[in-house]
Amino acid sequence: MSRIQPNSPPQYLTGHFIVFEGGEGAGKTTQIERSRLWLQKQLSLDTPILVTREPGGSPLGQALRHILLEGESIPDLTELLLYAADRAHHVAEVLQPALAEGAIILCDRFTDSTIAYQGYGRGLDLTLIEQLNRIASQGLESSLTLWLDVEVERGLARTHQRGKRDRLDQADLAFHQRVQQGFRTLAAQFPQRIIPIDANGSEEQVATKIQEILTKWFNA
Amino acid sequence: MSRIQPNSPPQYLTGHFIVFEGGEGAGKTTQIERSRLWLQKQLSLDTPILVTREPGGSPLGQALRHILLEGESIPDLTELLLYAADRAHHVAEVLQPALAEGAIILCDRFTDSTIAYQGYGRGLDLTLIEQLNRIASQGLESSLTLWLDVEVERGLARTHQRGKRDRLDQADLAFHQRVQQGFRTLAAQFPQRIIPIDANGSEEQVATKIQEILTKWFNA
Repeated sequence: MSRIQPNSPPQYLTGHFIVFEGGEGAGKTTQIERSRLWLQKQLSLDTPILVTREPGGSPLGQALRHILLEGESIPDLTELLLYAADRAHHVAEVLQPALAEGAIILCDRFTDSTIAYQGYGRGLDLTLIEQLNRIASQGLESSLTLWLDVEVERGLARTHQRGKRDRLDQADLAFHQRVQQGFRTLAAQFPQRIIPIDANGSEEQVATKIQEILTKWFNA
Repeated sequence: MSRIQPNSPPQYLTGHFIVFEGGEGAGKTTQIERSRLWLQKQLSLDTPILVTREPGGSPLGQALRHILLEGESIPDLTELLLYAADRAHHVAEVLQPALAEGAIILCDRFTDSTIAYQGYGRGLDLTLIEQLNRIASQGLESSLTLWLDVEVERGLARTHQRGKRDRLDQADLAFHQRVQQGFRTLAAQFPQRIIPIDANGSEEQVATKIQEILTKWFNA
């Protein structure tokens, strides 16, 4: 009989859990791919690098991602619990096993996105969100979170250019400004864990900044 | 911007929320249908009667029910959060609107099943389950819970006869005995809300007992 201990420290984990956060059009997908290619050149061939995301980082999560982002409108609390279920599965089935094998994980969104989008963006109770984040993440925190900080209008213009139209993109400008404020508040609150990166420049410029930070971080 | 208040009392609800609980083969489905037909005869034609269930009492819930009962094995915590998401949606989209219209709801399983199956049966942390039950139910409690108390072996024999084989049925006898112990503990803990009904007899016998209890309850 298993017994869940959400707050037990995952001491057996030896890898690195690097999370990319940011609003719409911040360039997370592009920069994760560039970081993966760059890290592969820097590191020994033995080091596994895993690229993953939330929601949808596990097979079950993909079904939930579809419900969350492409279905009809879902009430706030249901949405929050579905994100939590996706996270719990991702942590248990993907992240913890990969970290136990010493992998470097590059993950597109984690707990901070839930606080920024559902908390600051939609106005759900932050205490409730933090409670569910704690339960779902089972004590796992990022080793390092790179917050790609792009001006809201610029980010949205980028997503419109690539014709992306999921449910979040259709929300209004004020919503995305609240989300941005959420990330800003979190970065100020957790300066040890969250590193802001100016993501308004070109792909190349942003990639260079990320590589500088990763170099310092792996050398520390 | 909505703000979730999970523990606010739902004072605007005027209907009756009657839950049927019990282990495998207790006869919930049969007795809910018999109760519905009987209530329809007793009540004015104006009183809406709603038959529903968890998981799967909303359209989104049906997708989640499929994942929960027919997919591959799901880790405990993920399962718990999916049940919570199903419940949150069911409460917000089905139960609360029906109660606001004065309906009598006959519901197949609610929060007590999560405590009995996931808590007592699988051994998940009861405090965590109660926390998630409170969040997902948004303050809604049953008006009356009828616990169909059937001997474990007898109940399982009934389900084997009808060839039912979902994931829960394949678990072992000891599991179902722990579930039964869970319902027994809950009934002792909440005697005002949970009425045990001997469900070992014939359909007819059990239906008669339920009708007696409902008659008393509606007259009180």
